[in-house]
Amino acid sequence: MSGIWQDNFSSVAKNNRPSPIREMLAVIKQPGMISFAGGMPAPEVFPVDQFYEGAHILKDQGKELLQYGTTEGYPPLKDFLAAWTAPRLGRKAGPEEMLITTGSQQALDLFAWSMIDKGDYVITEDPSYLAALTVFFNHGGSFLGVPTDRNGMQVDLLPGIIEKARSEGKKIKFIYTIVNFHNPGGSTMSVERRKKLVEISKQYNIPIFEDDPYGYVRYEGDHLPSIFSFHDQGGVIYAGSFSKILSPGTRVGWVTGPKEIIRNLTVFKQGTDLCSSTITQALVAEYCVNGHLDRHLPVIIDNYRVKRDAMEKSFEKHLTPLGVTWVKPEGGFFYWLKFPTVNTNDLFKKAIDKKVAFVPGDPFCPTAGAGIHNARLCYTFPSPEIIEEGVKRLAEAVTELAIPAVH
Amino acid sequence: MSGIWQDNFSSVAKNNRPSPIREMLAVIKQPGMISFAGGMPAPEVFPVDQFYEGAHILKDQGKELLQYGTTEGYPPLKDFLAAWTAPRLGRKAGPEEMLITTGSQQALDLFAWSMIDKGDYVITEDPSYLAALTVFFNHGGSFLGVPTDRNGMQVDLLPGIIEKARSEGKKIKFIYTIVNFHNPGGSTMSVERRKKLVEISKQYNIPIFEDDPYGYVRYEGDHLPSIFSFHDQGGVIYAGSFSKILSPGTRVGWVTGPKEIIRNLTVFKQGTDLCSSTITQALVAEYCVNGHLDRHLPVIIDNYRVKRDAMEKSFEKHLTPLGVTWVKPEGGFFYWLKFPTVNTNDLFKKAIDKKVAFVPGDPFCPTAGAGIHNARLCYTFPSPEIIEEGVKRLAEAVTELAIPAVH
Repeated sequence: MSGIWQDNFSSVAKNNRPSPIREMLAVIKQPGMISFAGGMPAPEVFPVDQFYEGAHILKDQGKELLQYGTTEGYPPLKDFLAAWTAPRLGRKAGPEEMLITTGSQQALDLFAWSMIDKGDYVITEDPSYLAALTVFFNHGGSFLGVPTDRNGMQVDLLPGIIEKARSEGKKIKFIYTIVNFHNPGGSTMSVERRKKLVEISKQYNIPIFEDDPYGYVRYEGDHLPSIFSFHDQGGVIYAGSFSKILSPGTRVGWVTGPKEIIRNLTVFKQGTDLCSSTITQALVAEYCVNGHLDRHLPVIIDNYRVKRDAMEKSFEKHLTPLGVTWVKPEGGFFYWLKFPTVNTNDLFKKAIDKKVAFVPGDPFCPTAGAGIHNARLCYTFPSPEIIEEGVKRLAEAVTELAIPAVH
Repeated sequence: MSGIWQDNFSSVAKNNRPSPIREMLAVIKQPGMISFAGGMPAPEVFPVDQFYEGAHILKDQGKELLQYGTTEGYPPLKDFLAAWTAPRLGRKAGPEEMLITTGSQQALDLFAWSMIDKGDYVITEDPSYLAALTVFFNHGGSFLGVPTDRNGMQVDLLPGIIEKARSEGKKIKFIYTIVNFHNPGGSTMSVERRKKLVEISKQYNIPIFEDDPYGYVRYEGDHLPSIFSFHDQGGVIYAGSFSKILSPGTRVGWVTGPKEIIRNLTVFKQGTDLCSSTITQALVAEYCVNGHLDRHLPVIIDNYRVKRDAMEKSFEKHLTPLGVTWVKPEGGFFYWLKFPTVNTNDLFKKAIDKKVAFVPGDPFCPTAGAGIHNARLCYTFPSPEIIEEGVKRLAEAVTELAIPAVH
């Protein structure tokens, strides 16, 4: 490859981290394919009418909404969020402690701008959110992966990992964690581990990015206090999003933390997109302030709980006999399966033949090879009947793969 | 400064490029202040009713618009833009040659991701767009500034600049240019220079980023062909925006170029914000497809032409006697003044006392100190009467500054 562009590409452009979901898109769209791959909300839970109800604001406050907004975010939305998130965060954040972002994906990018120099290390769960690994990698970050179990990151392993890395001269910049209904792991970090993680953060002077896009989509049990609420020295930045509780099409997320880090994110946001859309922020604010968010959330949760239960039942029926294991998620979008006998990259090809798609585990893992027996399955999009059919096909694929072909 | 955040900040976070407009915001908002500082559209030209007309799409296509969009952009908007920009670009771009961005600011960030390694050089006009300099700087870029005159970048100087830089071992990655109604310079690059620039791009194997947010806001004379249209080897990427021709609050921009660079920008967009809002893209598309963009553009142009003429007249009356010079812009938002006798950082303070604000020239200049006698004034926001009063106050500030105070 050469030419005026390629000759001038940056090293990161020449060396992109693979994005399997993107590469799989054409395959997933084949007719008859059952897809458990993407992490998309179900269209039937979108509150189209209630969201449209707020559209009058485009007329009533058109001159303000069509103008540039402040980089910090639309004040009525920030006011709502400060109050709405207070129970989870332990207190009401002030306006200078919160930034509205263009989806919570942008919070990751802005945070990476603020923290990562080329060669720095980031501690993440192993596995972790694919697009977080991508953006941290783009910014020059390397990873220290921490194994997880049904209670989330095994924080007891952290002191050893940190001390070993530091003894090797590695600079660790922050700990990235998805505490509730992990993507892709499905697990939720226990309260005990949250407290322990805060102690480790303080002891080793390493801040925490607490990513919580799924936290309000809980099917059973009580909400757990955020890590943010336990850190009495302000060492946590907390990111939330409307993508899973209202609509990803709005591209509205937020991030809450101490003023000094929020100010830094805000400065980088100016270089990145100046400000988030005032129009979508105002539409989201109208929806929320009118009470729709709290009224509609149970509809979403009920819809997804049924699908989670359907997938659990199908797994027990078709996959337990094959030795496949998993953690039952208490909320969120994902199952993370372990297939003891097959490589999930091979399984993916076989599954596509059977017209069922998932995401193989390896790209989620900062430790190379750690995920070759794992797969992520999303249950929010298909109906319970389709879920049963898809899991059945997947089990057939496993069975066929386990039996050596006769030549 | 120290603590869990500061101890872990990235080097670019510790070393941010100053953002004068941001720092000036509090001052500009003082009561009675006349501001020529920000580059904001006039609220009275926002087509509130026509924009609202398209809001029904939130109801009619709600399930699609509330969902994630493709990273590449909303197809109906891309179709419209491909046809609408064809006269300027010389041909209709294909879907894989265009990416919708979250404002054209994001195009700069994504392009920097694709091209700049720390230590690389970017050629820009001197002065240039502040937030482009900021984002290129954040990505590790340094600058080679090319002086401008009333016909834009003095492209004849380029071969010498390029050869000198290369002989010093500097790696030049691209040429960034604002061809029409330059921000902050006000000038428009002549057709002859556009062609020459393309020859230089080909000769030296350096691609061009053609930034054109103001190009459709022309008060008189004919539109000029884009640099994109002259480059027969596909070495130009062209960025446009709805911010100045419809609404910055939509945060919708676009970028057109060869597939290989658009694909690269798209990959980086996934890490940055996944996709632009489907909601704002659909609202903009409705507005455009229904013919409002073409019908409303003359309203905007007429409004701003009157203000440009008012500012020109006030300058002739109050500033010509003081030796101040400028280029009369044929479109766009800005005048770039040269004050031969005063430092504009000092003038800014004196002007604020007089309740008139502008942006001092220095931060726009990649060559340190090159802009200390310059100032950028935006005329689109205030009324002609306010413009006259503001320029009068500015002239008083210049006069008072030129007379040494008696102690």
